[in-house]
Order: sequence, then structure tokens, then C-alpha cells
Amino acid sequence: MSVIANTPKPPYYAVIFTSTRTEGENGYSETANRMVELAEQQPGFLGVESAREELGITVSYWAELESIKLWKANIEHLEAQKKGRSQWYQSFKVRISKVERDYGI
Amino acid sequence: MSVIANTPKPPYYAVIFTSTRTEGENGYSETANRMVELAEQQPGFLGVESAREELGITVSYWAELESIKLWKANIEHLEAQKKGRSQWYQSFKVRISKVERDYGI
Repeated sequence: MSVIANTPKPPYYAVIFTSTRTEGENGYSETANRMVELAEQQPGFLGVESAREELGITVSYWAELESIKLWKANIEHLEAQKKGRSQWYQSFKVRISKVERDYGI
Repeated sequence: MSVIANTPKPPYYAVIFTSTRTEGENGYSETANRMVELAEQQPGFLGVESAREELGITVSYWAELESIKLWKANIEHLEAQKKGRSQWYQSFKVRISKVERDYGI
């Protein structure tokens, strides 16, 4: 279950991953779950939030740009990224951003 | 329909709005649609992406921090924010971030 991530006081980083899927499952969910499990073990991981309707939005939060770089280069994640490009996603956009301020209830 | 926002070359700003809803509709959808319509008319608005499952995630993109400030202070939006706090959202978090890099297919 996805809940609002309990991130620390800014600054920290957010990777906004927006996507539209292709037809069919093709092992997507299993890998998606595995990637969350794996991301949680990475140094500098702060949390992740996810929702999908026509559009899927996953925002992961990181302590440092370096943490994001290491996660992007993770072997198992590289394999998933390859399948993402070739099979699972019709289109996607990754945006790397620095959270400067936050508030909420 | 929500599609991947056609944002310009970074830098630009992203407001990541994550929320969980209360029970019941209470006029939420009508106001949510109106807020998108209104945001699109604001100076500096670049696009918006949205999806909801248990968690709702709406990311709006803006040219400048000043554009975000003006949108937050919009009279009709202030009214909606008040109802959001008192009626529609069980919890929410707003994160204001600067997009430094993006890529995709």
C-alpha cells in the first residue's frame, strides 16, 4: 500500500517518474514490486509514493543526487529499465528535482 | 484525461501534491476539475499530471517560484484549499521542487 512518504526536512531530492503502460501485464507488477523492495535498501532512499490511472506517477525521494545515480546504475534496476523501454512503457518521463520546501497536514 | 506533461527544457519547478481523501464526494471532483482549468490560465503554468489510487498524486509544473506563489494566493484556489483542509483530505503533503534534469521516451 502506498502512503504519503515520511520525508525529512528539505532539502532532499525527488525523482518524478511519469508513464503510460503498453497493453498486457508481461511480468510488470512483479518487477515493479521488486524495484520498490530493492530501492528501499539503497543508501539515501527516503521514501516512495505511487498511483496509477491512465497515467502512472511514482515519486521516489532521496537524500543526495549521488544516491539517485547509484540507484540508476544498480544491475537489477538496469535490467528492469531495459524491459521498461522495450516492453512495459508506451511513454515515460523521468524528472530529477530538488525539494526546497514542503508542508502539509 | 491526464497525459505526460510536455514541459520545456529544465530548469523549471514541480509542485508535488500527495494526498489521501476522506470518505464521500462532497463536491470534490467538480472543484478539482475547476482548479486544473484555473491553473492552466495562470502565468507560468507548464502542465499538470495526476493519478489516484489509495494515494492521490498531482504534479503541476511551473516556470518560476513566483508563478507558484501567485497560484497559491489565487482567491478561488484559496477557497478550495480551505475546503481541502476541512473536508476533502485526510492528509496531504505539498513539496515544492526545482527540476534540474529530465529524460524519457
